[in-house]
Amino acid sequence: MANYSKQFQDYLLSIEQKQTPKGLYAPIDYLLALGAKRIRPTLTLMATDAFEGDTENSLAAALAVELFHNFTLMHDDIMDDAPLRRGQPTVHEKWDINTGILSGDVMLVQAYQALEVYPEGLHSKLTRLLSKTAIEVCEGQQYDVDFEKENETTIEAYLEMIRLKTAVLVGCALQMGAYIANSSEEEAQKIYDFGVLLGLTFQIQDDYLDAFGDPKTFGKQIGGDIIENKKTILYHKALLLGNEDQKTQLRSWFESSEDFVVEQKIKAVKELFVQTTAAEASQELMQKYTEQAYQALESLDIKQQGKAILRSFASQLMQRQF
Amino acid sequence: MANYSKQFQDYLLSIEQKQTPKGLYAPIDYLLALGAKRIRPTLTLMATDAFEGDTENSLAAALAVELFHNFTLMHDDIMDDAPLRRGQPTVHEKWDINTGILSGDVMLVQAYQALEVYPEGLHSKLTRLLSKTAIEVCEGQQYDVDFEKENETTIEAYLEMIRLKTAVLVGCALQMGAYIANSSEEEAQKIYDFGVLLGLTFQIQDDYLDAFGDPKTFGKQIGGDIIENKKTILYHKALLLGNEDQKTQLRSWFESSEDFVVEQKIKAVKELFVQTTAAEASQELMQKYTEQAYQALESLDIKQQGKAILRSFASQLMQRQF
Repeated sequence: MANYSKQFQDYLLSIEQKQTPKGLYAPIDYLLALGAKRIRPTLTLMATDAFEGDTENSLAAALAVELFHNFTLMHDDIMDDAPLRRGQPTVHEKWDINTGILSGDVMLVQAYQALEVYPEGLHSKLTRLLSKTAIEVCEGQQYDVDFEKENETTIEAYLEMIRLKTAVLVGCALQMGAYIANSSEEEAQKIYDFGVLLGLTFQIQDDYLDAFGDPKTFGKQIGGDIIENKKTILYHKALLLGNEDQKTQLRSWFESSEDFVVEQKIKAVKELFVQTTAAEASQELMQKYTEQAYQALESLDIKQQGKAILRSFASQLMQRQF
Repeated sequence: MANYSKQFQDYLLSIEQKQTPKGLYAPIDYLLALGAKRIRPTLTLMATDAFEGDTENSLAAALAVELFHNFTLMHDDIMDDAPLRRGQPTVHEKWDINTGILSGDVMLVQAYQALEVYPEGLHSKLTRLLSKTAIEVCEGQQYDVDFEKENETTIEAYLEMIRLKTAVLVGCALQMGAYIANSSEEEAQKIYDFGVLLGLTFQIQDDYLDAFGDPKTFGKQIGGDIIENKKTILYHKALLLGNEDQKTQLRSWFESSEDFVVEQKIKAVKELFVQTTAAEASQELMQKYTEQAYQALESLDIKQQGKAILRSFASQLMQRQF
């Protein structure tokens, strides 16, 4: 794992970012340098390796994926009015909103440009995949915005939202790696499916840990979603599984504009998540997706060693061990 | 001319825009439907025709160019805090800033997707050209933002800014049309150069007409740039050619925060533009670029008929006859 990540990090550092106009490129350098885990580019290299390709060849695609991911962060942080990203001021806070918009636009174009090193057939294929994924991620972001305004959304709609917003890019990262190793279309699709299931599991786990995680290892404030009235999987499951009284209580915590003690709200909502069995049901769903992900992985026509590396990475990812 | 424009308009209307999520796609429909002149897509079709290709084949590239152009409008309008576009509320005014950001992002990706209809070699070539142009347009926008904050910029820096922000996309539109008609790289470069010169001329003329145009035909408020302290070619030429007294007067009109009667400022600044010979010098520069544009056009290895159509369009564009 660490090797792939280091290989990508070294490559990233070796690239000379353009310097002028400074107002455009400095924010890109800044965001890319914030200590990220490079999960997506690691997956691209890993997929190439699993299909017995040369990971040197997939560094550019890994860069495209990382640039695209950071473009979405830069624009999403504006839309979410987020002050911090990876513990540091967001670009629109450190500079301004216009900078965040324009530098973000450039990163999206740079993601496409990163793919230009490939021969035209592969370039064309990777570009199509990037565009398809990009549209889906934007649609996911829009659904996320819409859902925060709507009172009731279904679990199915929520899962589709996180599939688009988060999971398809994980699939895309792996599929690009497979393409570069010259895999068949069928195999590329299978590793994509594995990635989407991995992404879904990761997001559901993120929702779960936000309420029930260990403050020492989770890295974010426990209860952050509850404070912000985020309609996570726990919220949706609670509204599906709770009795009328529990649902009324939950809605009133999320919709009330009355003052309350934050700790009290977190405690009460967490209790509701447990009492309604929403917490348990969320873990079951996570388990279901994990199993499906491993099945997709098993069905791949690659060596056992490749499967083992991917399985180990998936397992570490889901246990937040790095 | 009208035929190319109509051919493109019919094609645009024939495309089914995705409907959901509505918050994402409705703003795109809205902006594309505002009565635009479709200058750039017209140039793409015209270039294909001039190189004896089938204009049917260049409709998708023309769409890519128009989508890209409208993406820049959507994001620039946010950055400029513009209330109106083509006489109607801008997207971020009618919806909100987040909508303008996200729908704009989607239009940029859709521009890339429009090119997917081409065979992989051509797809790869057109995608590279779109990316190169997109980066330049973003750099031009950044320089424009920077220049408004700086007190002194050179004419050279100003011309480079409008080349990037406005002219390269005109070149790109023509070059794509040439590529699709299977022109040589050399010819494609020549028609690109013609387009860039055309774009420069158009922008300088726009600066000139903003002060000295006929209110009946110009379509925008005369003196708008002066009111907004825009550092146009007239401003730069005046600072280059004026005497110390004239320069001091001009600077004080542009930098003063004192109250003044708008009509009085417009009148005084226009007089300074005439007295410093900035108005004359701007027209001479326009004339110089026009001649260079026609020379680039003459050097093209295409039939006289194609040259005549391009020359006629350029001439109409520069005389604002449509």
